[in-house]
Amino acid sequence: VKQASYIAGDWGTSHLRLMLCDVEGFCIESREGPGAAASRGKFPETLELLTADWQRVHGDLPVVLCGMVGSSIGWIEAPYLPCPAKPDVLAGAVVVPRGRGVSIVPGLSCTNPHGAPDVLRGEETQLLGALALEPALGEGRKLVCLPGTHTKWLWLDDGVVRQFLTAPTGELFGLLVDHSVLVRDRDTPVAHIDVDFKRGVADAAGATDASLLHRLFESRSRRMAKLLTPEGAASWTSGLLIGSDVTAALKLARDVDAGAITVIGTPTLTGRYAEALKHAHRAAHCLDGAAAAQAGLTRIRHQLARVVL
Amino acid sequence: VKQASYIAGDWGTSHLRLMLCDVEGFCIESREGPGAAASRGKFPETLELLTADWQRVHGDLPVVLCGMVGSSIGWIEAPYLPCPAKPDVLAGAVVVPRGRGVSIVPGLSCTNPHGAPDVLRGEETQLLGALALEPALGEGRKLVCLPGTHTKWLWLDDGVVRQFLTAPTGELFGLLVDHSVLVRDRDTPVAHIDVDFKRGVADAAGATDASLLHRLFESRSRRMAKLLTPEGAASWTSGLLIGSDVTAALKLARDVDAGAITVIGTPTLTGRYAEALKHAHRAAHCLDGAAAAQAGLTRIRHQLARVVL
Repeated sequence: VKQASYIAGDWGTSHLRLMLCDVEGFCIESREGPGAAASRGKFPETLELLTADWQRVHGDLPVVLCGMVGSSIGWIEAPYLPCPAKPDVLAGAVVVPRGRGVSIVPGLSCTNPHGAPDVLRGEETQLLGALALEPALGEGRKLVCLPGTHTKWLWLDDGVVRQFLTAPTGELFGLLVDHSVLVRDRDTPVAHIDVDFKRGVADAAGATDASLLHRLFESRSRRMAKLLTPEGAASWTSGLLIGSDVTAALKLARDVDAGAITVIGTPTLTGRYAEALKHAHRAAHCLDGAAAAQAGLTRIRHQLARVVL
Repeated sequence: VKQASYIAGDWGTSHLRLMLCDVEGFCIESREGPGAAASRGKFPETLELLTADWQRVHGDLPVVLCGMVGSSIGWIEAPYLPCPAKPDVLAGAVVVPRGRGVSIVPGLSCTNPHGAPDVLRGEETQLLGALALEPALGEGRKLVCLPGTHTKWLWLDDGVVRQFLTAPTGELFGLLVDHSVLVRDRDTPVAHIDVDFKRGVADAAGATDASLLHRLFESRSRRMAKLLTPEGAASWTSGLLIGSDVTAALKLARDVDAGAITVIGTPTLTGRYAEALKHAHRAAHCLDGAAAAQAGLTRIRHQLARVVL
């Protein structure tokens, strides 16, 4: 049996991923569990149930968690660190509920490029991991994209998060697919059709001054005009949304390095954003989100251990 | 008993309004019924049930219908007339299913200002009524707005519809309010709070180059930052959406008359659009949508009677 050192967990709204780690941060074993939404009111019990055998075999292990588990609908509210924030500072601000050996990573807050308040939670840990995995990301002015239900765009100055912006791109796509006749009739299955996705990306890029609101109806009218198949409308809409997101973000990012933009997330989604970035003549460097989160939690755990010792 | 001449009906997706009219188009009596979605497969029966006593008292009356009843999910498919279209031509294209004395008004189609196909159905009749009620609308280059689930913006040249554009503003608002945590938690009631609506309008107008996608998250982050109350978030979002819709439409309408923009719809909704137009320093002239539809059906009935006689 390998010697376990701690337990790391990425506890998002809809999903929990727990990892038993050795002192180097290597994952010995991982398991899945219910998200923060489903765990409301029973976080300690959920964690205990899922880690009891690990704790029994390896003794009392410290636990470090990131994600919505630290939000107002989570276990305990961890603060939002105001930007500009250096990820290394994160460790110092970790919240430790009394007597449980559980640390929760704080989120970040900022005034976004549109002058509005903005927040993130969970992505700070993935960023920290990405900086550990790719040290060059910490040099110069970089743009980082973490696509998802709520896509985050982060502006980095030498590894410091200067500012960020949230776009509910994935959520809007889900709302349209699940609840609107704009994108599909009830019985039409949703599948990714690459040619329609790419056309949506191109259509978004070709009309940068058009309001997205004024283009969403096209998924219906193009179908009626036989310019789009019923099966392709969801993919076209996905392309339109991701294309709009990327186009608007690049407009705000004229001062970042001309090199590749780092995209962190699930391979499917980072691939879609890479496609939209390519259409805008920008290279994408894709990183797996789960690997980044694990590397981030490892780094936090090490910093935390240093503080405690 | 007043002498009835025909029955007019505005049969939209979710609502039917039938009117018993005299030869001048005056409404003797009106009643409500199920929309086209709920009437699928039983349009003749629904109409007969709702008009049997009228037909008994007044003899076999002709029926003229507009709206989604003429769509692919309606009773019978009436064509879309391609723009530029003169509303007077509409009468000539009315579809008459055999042996029932029922006429259905055709819709309009166009290539919209973004180069995409676009369609409308029902709004052509309201426009025709508006032109009858306000002859000045038929002179010069005018912009007409018909707000709703799918807001329509129409460009008129001397009463001819040159082009139009659909924005699913109302639908998007409904999706966000009913299905997203961005706008409200499950238990928060939805009420119109005027100060928050106006702030949303101002915020939309203040960042015309920002993607709407990049601003929708603010209804959540502003609440978290206590810049918005939980009760006010829906109204702010409504203001952001209507403000974005108006701002984008006005960008496309630089060549229209500097005078008032005609807004046709329910008084509540036309008032909201008038507010957003006022913020953009444009006057609004509001017309009641039900009155416009009735006037339009009257005009179509008269034109139709001329053709038949």
